[in-house]
Amino acid sequence: MSEPEVKRRPGGRSARVRAAVLDATFELLRARGLEGLRIAEVADRAGVHETSIYRRWGSRENLLLDALLEITEQLRVPDTGVLRDDLVAYATDLAAFLATPLGHALEHALAAAGDDPDARRARDRYWDARASRSRQIVTRAIERGDLPETVDPRMVIEMLVSPVHFRVVLTREPIEPGMPARLVDALLGGIAPRSP
Amino acid sequence: MSEPEVKRRPGGRSARVRAAVLDATFELLRARGLEGLRIAEVADRAGVHETSIYRRWGSRENLLLDALLEITEQLRVPDTGVLRDDLVAYATDLAAFLATPLGHALEHALAAAGDDPDARRARDRYWDARASRSRQIVTRAIERGDLPETVDPRMVIEMLVSPVHFRVVLTREPIEPGMPARLVDALLGGIAPRSP
Repeated sequence: MSEPEVKRRPGGRSARVRAAVLDATFELLRARGLEGLRIAEVADRAGVHETSIYRRWGSRENLLLDALLEITEQLRVPDTGVLRDDLVAYATDLAAFLATPLGHALEHALAAAGDDPDARRARDRYWDARASRSRQIVTRAIERGDLPETVDPRMVIEMLVSPVHFRVVLTREPIEPGMPARLVDALLGGIAPRSP
Repeated sequence: MSEPEVKRRPGGRSARVRAAVLDATFELLRARGLEGLRIAEVADRAGVHETSIYRRWGSRENLLLDALLEITEQLRVPDTGVLRDDLVAYATDLAAFLATPLGHALEHALAAAGDDPDARRARDRYWDARASRSRQIVTRAIERGDLPETVDPRMVIEMLVSPVHFRVVLTREPIEPGMPARLVDALLGGIAPRSP
Protein backbone atom coordinates (compact mmCIF):
# COMPACT_ATOMS: atom_id res chain seq x y z
CA MET A 1 0.00 0.00 0.00
CA SER A 2 1.13 3.53 -0.46
CA GLU A 3 0.68 6.01 2.37
CA PRO A 4 -2.82 5.36 3.56
CA GLU A 5 -5.24 8.17 4.20
CA VAL A 6 -7.66 7.72 7.00
CA LYS A 7 -11.06 7.23 5.47
CA ARG A 8 -13.57 9.81 6.58
CA ARG A 9 -16.26 7.68 8.00
CA PRO A 10 -19.80 8.93 7.90
CA GLY A 11 -21.16 9.06 11.38
CA GLY A 12 -21.25 11.01 14.56
CA ARG A 13 -18.90 13.33 16.30
CA SER A 14 -17.03 10.44 17.89
CA ALA A 15 -16.10 8.99 14.51
CA ARG A 16 -15.07 12.41 13.24
CA VAL A 17 -12.86 12.99 16.26
CA ARG A 18 -11.20 9.65 15.82
CA ALA A 19 -10.56 10.31 12.13
CA ALA A 20 -9.17 13.79 12.83
CA VAL A 21 -6.90 12.53 15.60
CA LEU A 22 -5.58 9.63 13.53
CA ASP A 23 -5.02 11.95 10.57
CA ALA A 24 -3.02 14.29 12.79
CA THR A 25 -1.08 11.31 14.15
CA PHE A 26 -0.19 10.12 10.66
CA GLU A 27 0.86 13.63 9.63
CA LEU A 28 3.17 14.00 12.61
CA LEU A 29 4.64 10.54 12.16
CA ARG A 30 5.28 11.26 8.50
CA ALA A 31 6.86 14.62 9.21
CA ARG A 32 9.01 13.79 12.22
CA GLY A 33 8.85 10.11 12.98
CA LEU A 34 7.97 8.64 16.32
CA GLU A 35 10.15 11.02 18.36
CA GLY A 36 8.07 13.94 17.16
CA LEU A 37 4.75 12.44 18.20
CA ARG A 38 3.45 14.57 21.09
CA ILE A 39 -0.16 14.30 22.22
CA ALA A 40 -0.38 18.09 22.68
CA GLU A 41 0.55 18.61 19.08
CA VAL A 42 -1.76 15.88 17.82
CA ALA A 43 -4.61 17.61 19.69
CA ASP A 44 -3.63 20.95 18.23
CA ARG A 45 -3.60 19.68 14.66
CA ALA A 46 -6.79 17.71 15.10
CA GLY A 47 -8.58 20.66 16.67
CA VAL A 48 -9.60 18.73 19.77
CA HIS A 49 -8.75 19.05 23.43
CA GLU A 50 -5.74 17.13 24.68
CA THR A 51 -7.96 15.66 27.40
CA SER A 52 -10.27 14.19 24.75
CA ILE A 53 -7.34 12.21 23.40
CA TYR A 54 -6.32 10.94 26.82
CA ARG A 55 -9.93 10.11 27.65
CA ARG A 56 -10.31 8.04 24.50
CA TRP A 57 -6.86 6.49 24.05
CA GLY A 58 -5.35 6.66 27.51
CA SER A 59 -1.75 6.98 26.35
CA ARG A 60 0.51 7.85 23.45
CA GLU A 61 1.25 4.14 23.04
CA ASN A 62 -2.42 3.27 22.68
CA LEU A 63 -2.87 6.03 20.13
CA LEU A 64 0.05 4.64 18.17
CA LEU A 65 -1.51 1.20 18.34
CA ASP A 66 -4.81 2.50 17.04
CA ALA A 67 -2.92 4.17 14.18
CA LEU A 68 -1.19 0.87 13.41
CA LEU A 69 -4.47 -1.03 13.44
CA GLU A 70 -6.05 1.58 11.17
CA ILE A 71 -3.22 1.07 8.71
CA THR A 72 -3.64 -2.67 8.93
CA GLU A 73 -7.29 -2.38 8.03
CA GLN A 74 -6.29 -0.43 4.97
CA LEU A 75 -3.59 -2.91 4.00
CA ARG A 76 -4.67 -4.29 0.68
CA VAL A 77 -4.84 -8.08 0.63
CA PRO A 78 -4.63 -8.97 -3.05
CA ASP A 79 -7.07 -11.53 -4.41
CA THR A 80 -6.24 -12.16 -8.06
CA GLY A 81 -7.08 -15.85 -7.98
CA VAL A 82 -3.42 -16.70 -8.60
CA LEU A 83 -1.34 -17.46 -5.51
CA ARG A 84 1.98 -16.32 -6.93
CA ASP A 85 0.55 -12.99 -8.07
CA ASP A 86 -1.12 -12.38 -4.71
CA LEU A 87 2.09 -13.07 -2.80
CA VAL A 88 4.25 -10.91 -5.07
CA ALA A 89 1.75 -8.03 -4.84
CA TYR A 90 1.55 -8.33 -1.06
CA ALA A 91 5.34 -8.29 -0.57
CA THR A 92 5.71 -5.45 -3.07
CA ASP A 93 3.10 -3.35 -1.27
CA LEU A 94 4.72 -4.06 2.08
CA ALA A 95 8.17 -3.01 0.83
CA ALA A 96 6.69 0.18 -0.67
CA PHE A 97 4.91 1.05 2.57
CA LEU A 98 7.99 0.43 4.72
CA ALA A 99 9.97 2.74 2.44
CA THR A 100 7.64 5.67 3.21
CA PRO A 101 8.53 7.93 6.17
CA LEU A 102 5.35 6.80 7.92
CA GLY A 103 6.06 3.11 7.38
CA HIS A 104 9.65 3.60 8.47
CA ALA A 105 8.55 5.37 11.66
CA LEU A 106 6.02 2.70 12.58
CA GLU A 107 8.43 -0.14 11.85
CA HIS A 108 11.16 1.34 14.00
CA ALA A 109 8.63 2.11 16.73
CA LEU A 110 7.71 -1.57 16.78
CA ALA A 111 11.37 -2.61 16.88
CA ALA A 112 12.16 -0.21 19.72
CA ALA A 113 9.02 -0.87 21.80
CA GLY A 114 9.45 -2.17 25.31
CA ASP A 115 8.35 -5.49 26.69
CA ASP A 116 6.02 -4.28 29.44
CA PRO A 117 2.54 -5.84 29.47
CA ASP A 118 0.84 -2.88 27.74
CA ALA A 119 3.39 -2.72 24.96
CA ARG A 120 3.25 -6.47 24.55
CA ARG A 121 -0.53 -6.50 24.32
CA ALA A 122 -0.52 -3.69 21.77
CA ARG A 123 2.15 -5.36 19.70
CA ASP A 124 0.43 -8.74 19.77
CA ARG A 125 -2.86 -7.18 18.65
CA TYR A 126 -1.11 -5.48 15.77
CA TRP A 127 0.73 -8.55 14.50
CA ASP A 128 -2.33 -10.77 14.99
CA ALA A 129 -4.42 -8.34 12.95
CA ARG A 130 -1.78 -8.25 10.23
CA ALA A 131 -1.37 -12.02 10.16
CA SER A 132 -5.07 -12.83 10.15
CA ARG A 133 -5.58 -10.60 7.12
CA SER A 134 -2.54 -11.60 5.11
CA ARG A 135 -2.88 -15.32 5.58
CA GLN A 136 -6.17 -15.18 3.67
CA ILE A 137 -3.98 -15.24 0.57
CA VAL A 138 -2.80 -18.70 1.54
CA THR A 139 -6.09 -20.06 2.87
CA ARG A 140 -7.81 -19.06 -0.37
CA ALA A 141 -5.14 -20.92 -2.35
CA ILE A 142 -5.72 -24.00 -0.19
CA GLU A 143 -9.50 -23.71 -0.77
CA ARG A 144 -8.90 -23.48 -4.51
CA GLY A 145 -6.79 -26.62 -4.29
CA ASP A 146 -3.65 -24.78 -5.36
CA LEU A 147 -1.86 -25.69 -2.15
CA PRO A 148 -2.08 -28.84 -0.04
CA GLU A 149 -4.09 -28.56 3.18
CA THR A 150 -0.97 -29.36 5.16
CA VAL A 151 0.52 -25.97 4.36
CA ASP A 152 0.71 -23.61 7.36
CA PRO A 153 -0.57 -20.20 6.15
CA ARG A 154 1.10 -18.38 9.00
CA MET A 155 4.51 -19.79 8.19
CA VAL A 156 4.16 -18.96 4.51
CA ILE A 157 3.37 -15.32 5.26
CA GLU A 158 6.10 -15.15 7.89
CA MET A 159 8.67 -16.46 5.41
CA LEU A 160 7.45 -13.99 2.80
CA VAL A 161 7.49 -10.83 4.89
CA SER A 162 10.50 -11.56 7.13
CA PRO A 163 13.22 -10.83 4.57
CA VAL A 164 11.53 -7.50 3.80
CA HIS A 165 11.40 -6.52 7.48
CA PHE A 166 14.94 -7.87 8.00
CA ARG A 167 16.32 -5.41 5.45
CA VAL A 168 14.32 -2.45 6.73
CA VAL A 169 15.08 -2.95 10.41
CA LEU A 170 18.45 -4.69 10.54
CA THR A 171 20.64 -4.65 7.44
CA ARG A 172 18.98 -1.46 6.04
CA GLU A 173 19.68 -2.68 2.53
CA PRO A 174 17.36 -1.42 -0.17
CA ILE A 175 14.76 -3.82 -1.47
CA GLU A 176 15.35 -4.29 -5.18
CA PRO A 177 12.25 -4.26 -7.38
CA GLY A 178 12.77 -7.92 -8.31
CA MET A 179 13.15 -9.16 -4.75
CA PRO A 180 9.47 -9.92 -3.98
CA ALA A 181 9.15 -12.15 -7.04
CA ARG A 182 12.40 -13.97 -6.29
CA LEU A 183 11.29 -14.54 -2.71
CA VAL A 184 7.93 -15.90 -3.82
CA ASP A 185 9.45 -18.23 -6.39
CA ALA A 186 11.92 -19.62 -3.87
CA LEU A 187 9.12 -19.99 -1.35
CA LEU A 188 6.73 -21.77 -3.68
CA GLY A 189 9.14 -24.00 -5.56
CA GLY A 190 11.99 -24.35 -3.08
CA ILE A 191 15.58 -23.43 -3.70
CA ALA A 192 16.54 -26.98 -4.51
CA PRO A 193 14.07 -27.80 -7.25
CA ARG A 194 13.84 -31.47 -8.11
CA SER A 195 15.10 -32.46 -11.51
CA PRO A 196 12.31 -32.31 -14.08
CA MET B 1 26.33 -20.61 19.28
CA SER B 2 25.98 -20.13 22.99
CA GLU B 3 27.45 -17.05 24.67
CA PRO B 4 30.92 -16.80 23.18
CA GLU B 5 33.96 -16.21 25.31
CA VAL B 6 36.68 -14.10 23.81
CA LYS B 7 39.57 -16.40 23.03
CA ARG B 8 42.75 -15.44 24.83
CA ARG B 9 45.13 -15.03 21.98
CA PRO B 10 48.77 -15.68 22.56
CA GLY B 11 50.72 -12.58 21.68
CA GLY B 12 51.76 -9.21 22.85
CA ARG B 13 50.29 -6.63 25.13
CA SER B 14 48.14 -5.21 22.35
CA ALA B 15 46.35 -8.51 21.85
CA ARG B 16 45.90 -8.94 25.60
CA VAL B 17 44.43 -5.45 25.90
CA ARG B 18 42.00 -6.10 23.08
CA ALA B 19 40.91 -9.39 24.63
CA ALA B 20 40.48 -7.82 28.06
CA VAL B 21 38.48 -4.90 26.69
CA LEU B 22 36.22 -7.12 24.58
CA ASP B 23 35.69 -9.44 27.56
CA ALA B 24 34.66 -6.47 29.67
CA THR B 25 32.38 -5.26 26.88
CA PHE B 26 30.66 -8.64 26.66
CA GLU B 27 30.26 -8.80 30.44
CA LEU B 28 28.63 -5.38 30.57
CA LEU B 29 26.37 -6.11 27.61
CA ARG B 30 25.31 -9.37 29.20
CA ALA B 31 24.63 -7.77 32.54
CA ARG B 32 22.91 -4.55 31.51
CA GLY B 33 22.41 -4.50 27.79
CA LEU B 34 23.48 -1.72 25.51
CA GLU B 35 22.27 1.09 27.77
CA GLY B 36 24.71 0.01 30.44
CA LEU B 37 27.75 0.07 28.18
CA ARG B 38 29.96 2.96 29.34
CA ILE B 39 33.56 3.22 28.18
CA ALA B 40 34.70 4.27 31.67
CA GLU B 41 33.27 1.09 33.11
CA VAL B 42 34.67 -1.09 30.35
CA ALA B 43 38.11 0.41 31.08
CA ASP B 44 37.66 -0.20 34.77
CA ARG B 45 36.73 -3.85 34.33
CA ALA B 46 39.44 -4.46 31.76
CA GLY B 47 42.10 -2.83 33.94
CA VAL B 48 43.16 -0.39 31.23
CA HIS B 49 43.03 3.39 30.92
CA GLU B 50 39.96 4.90 29.37
CA THR B 51 42.23 6.79 26.97
CA SER B 52 43.66 3.47 25.69
CA ILE B 53 40.18 2.47 24.62
CA TYR B 54 39.51 5.76 22.86
CA ARG B 55 42.94 5.64 21.21
CA ARG B 56 42.31 2.16 19.84
CA TRP B 57 38.57 2.19 19.08
CA GLY B 58 37.78 5.87 18.78
CA SER B 59 34.19 5.58 19.99
CA ARG B 60 31.72 3.45 21.86
CA GLU B 61 30.11 2.55 18.53
CA ASN B 62 33.39 1.25 17.10
CA LEU B 63 33.98 -0.81 20.21
CA LEU B 64 30.52 -2.30 19.83
CA LEU B 65 31.29 -3.08 16.20
CA ASP B 66 34.53 -4.81 17.14
CA ALA B 67 32.59 -6.86 19.69
CA LEU B 68 30.07 -7.81 17.00
CA LEU B 69 32.82 -8.81 14.58
CA GLU B 70 34.51 -10.88 17.29
CA ILE B 71 31.25 -12.73 17.84
CA THR B 72 30.86 -13.25 14.13
CA GLU B 73 34.28 -14.85 13.93
CA GLN B 74 33.22 -17.25 16.65
CA LEU B 75 29.90 -18.03 15.00
CA ARG B 76 30.05 -21.69 14.19
CA VAL B 77 29.41 -22.42 10.53
CA PRO B 78 28.38 -26.07 10.49
CA ASP B 79 29.93 -28.34 7.88
CA THR B 80 28.36 -31.77 8.21
CA GLY B 81 28.39 -32.52 4.51
CA VAL B 82 24.58 -32.48 4.48
CA LEU B 83 22.97 -29.20 3.43
CA ARG B 84 19.76 -29.67 5.42
CA ASP B 85 21.65 -30.49 8.61
CA ASP B 86 23.98 -27.50 8.17
CA LEU B 87 21.08 -25.11 7.68
CA VAL B 88 19.08 -26.44 10.62
CA ALA B 89 22.13 -26.26 12.89
CA TYR B 90 22.91 -22.72 11.76
CA ALA B 91 19.38 -21.43 12.36
CA THR B 92 19.18 -23.26 15.69
CA ASP B 93 22.46 -21.71 16.87
CA LEU B 94 21.34 -18.28 15.77
CA ALA B 95 18.04 -18.56 17.63
CA ALA B 96 19.88 -19.76 20.75
CA PHE B 97 22.34 -16.88 20.59
CA LEU B 98 19.63 -14.26 20.07
CA ALA B 99 17.83 -15.63 23.13
CA THR B 100 20.83 -14.88 25.37
CA PRO B 101 21.01 -11.46 27.07
CA LEU B 102 24.12 -10.64 25.04
CA GLY B 103 22.54 -11.66 21.74
CA HIS B 104 19.39 -9.76 22.61
CA ALA B 105 21.38 -6.61 23.45
CA LEU B 106 23.40 -6.74 20.23
CA GLU B 107 20.35 -7.43 18.08
CA HIS B 108 18.41 -4.52 19.52
CA ALA B 109 21.47 -2.29 19.23
CA LEU B 110 21.58 -3.09 15.51
CA ALA B 111 17.86 -2.39 15.15
CA ALA B 112 18.12 0.93 17.00
CA ALA B 113 21.33 2.14 15.37
CA GLY B 114 21.26 5.39 13.44
CA ASP B 115 21.84 5.91 9.76
CA ASP B 116 24.81 8.28 9.89
CA PRO B 117 27.84 7.27 7.78
CA ASP B 118 29.82 5.77 10.70
CA ALA B 119 26.90 3.67 11.90
CA ARG B 120 26.15 2.58 8.35
CA ARG B 121 29.75 1.56 7.71
CA ALA B 122 29.92 -0.39 10.95
CA ARG B 123 26.62 -2.11 10.27
CA ASP B 124 27.57 -3.01 6.70
CA ARG B 125 30.86 -4.53 7.86
CA TYR B 126 29.05 -6.62 10.43
CA TRP B 127 26.40 -7.98 8.07
CA ASP B 128 28.94 -8.53 5.30
CA ALA B 129 31.12 -10.53 7.69
CA ARG B 130 28.12 -12.56 8.82
CA ALA B 131 26.91 -13.22 5.29
CA SER B 132 30.30 -14.15 3.87
CA ARG B 133 30.73 -16.79 6.57
CA SER B 134 27.24 -18.24 6.57
CA ARG B 135 26.83 -18.51 2.83
CA GLN B 136 29.70 -21.03 2.80
CA ILE B 137 27.03 -23.53 3.80
CA VAL B 138 25.33 -22.95 0.47
CA THR B 139 28.44 -22.63 -1.70
CA ARG B 140 29.74 -25.93 -0.34
CA ALA B 141 26.43 -27.58 -1.24
CA ILE B 142 26.71 -26.17 -4.76
CA GLU B 143 30.29 -27.48 -5.02
CA ARG B 144 29.11 -30.92 -3.90
CA GLY B 145 26.46 -30.80 -6.59
CA ASP B 146 23.65 -30.85 -4.03
CA LEU B 147 22.28 -27.53 -5.29
CA PRO B 148 22.19 -26.09 -8.80
CA GLU B 149 24.75 -23.40 -9.57
CA THR B 150 21.94 -20.95 -10.22
CA VAL B 151 21.08 -20.81 -6.53
CA ASP B 152 21.94 -17.47 -4.87
CA PRO B 153 23.69 -18.32 -1.56
CA ARG B 154 22.98 -14.90 -0.11
CA MET B 155 19.25 -15.19 -0.71
CA VAL B 156 19.11 -18.65 0.82
CA ILE B 157 20.79 -17.46 4.00
CA GLU B 158 18.66 -14.33 4.09
CA MET B 159 15.47 -16.39 3.81
CA LEU B 160 16.71 -18.73 6.53
CA VAL B 161 17.72 -16.16 9.13
CA SER B 162 15.07 -13.49 8.47
CA PRO B 163 12.16 -15.24 10.20
CA VAL B 164 14.36 -15.77 13.26
CA HIS B 165 15.34 -12.09 13.40
CA PHE B 166 11.73 -11.06 12.61
CA ARG B 167 10.49 -12.78 15.75
CA VAL B 168 13.27 -11.49 17.98
CA VAL B 169 13.09 -7.85 16.86
CA LEU B 170 9.49 -7.32 15.75
CA THR B 171 6.86 -9.82 16.84
CA ARG B 172 8.88 -10.97 19.92
CA GLU B 173 7.34 -14.39 19.60
CA PRO B 174 9.36 -17.29 20.98
CA ILE B 175 11.12 -19.51 18.48
CA GLU B 176 9.80 -23.03 18.94
CA PRO B 177 12.41 -25.81 18.89
CA GLY B 178 10.96 -27.22 15.66
CA MET B 179 10.94 -23.94 13.78
CA PRO B 180 14.44 -24.10 12.23
CA ALA B 181 13.75 -27.52 10.70
CA ARG B 182 10.35 -26.40 9.36
CA LEU B 183 11.94 -23.30 7.84
CA VAL B 184 14.68 -25.32 6.20
CA ASP B 185 12.27 -27.88 4.77
CA ALA B 186 10.05 -25.17 3.32
CA LEU B 187 13.10 -23.41 1.93
CA LEU B 188 14.61 -26.47 0.30
CA GLY B 189 11.49 -28.14 -1.01
CA GLY B 190 9.11 -25.24 -1.37
CA ILE B 191 5.74 -24.88 0.27
CA ALA B 192 3.93 -26.08 -2.81
CA PRO B 193 5.60 -29.41 -3.44
CA ARG B 194 4.87 -30.92 -6.81
CA SER B 195 2.88 -34.10 -6.79
CA PRO B 196 5.15 -37.13 -6.52
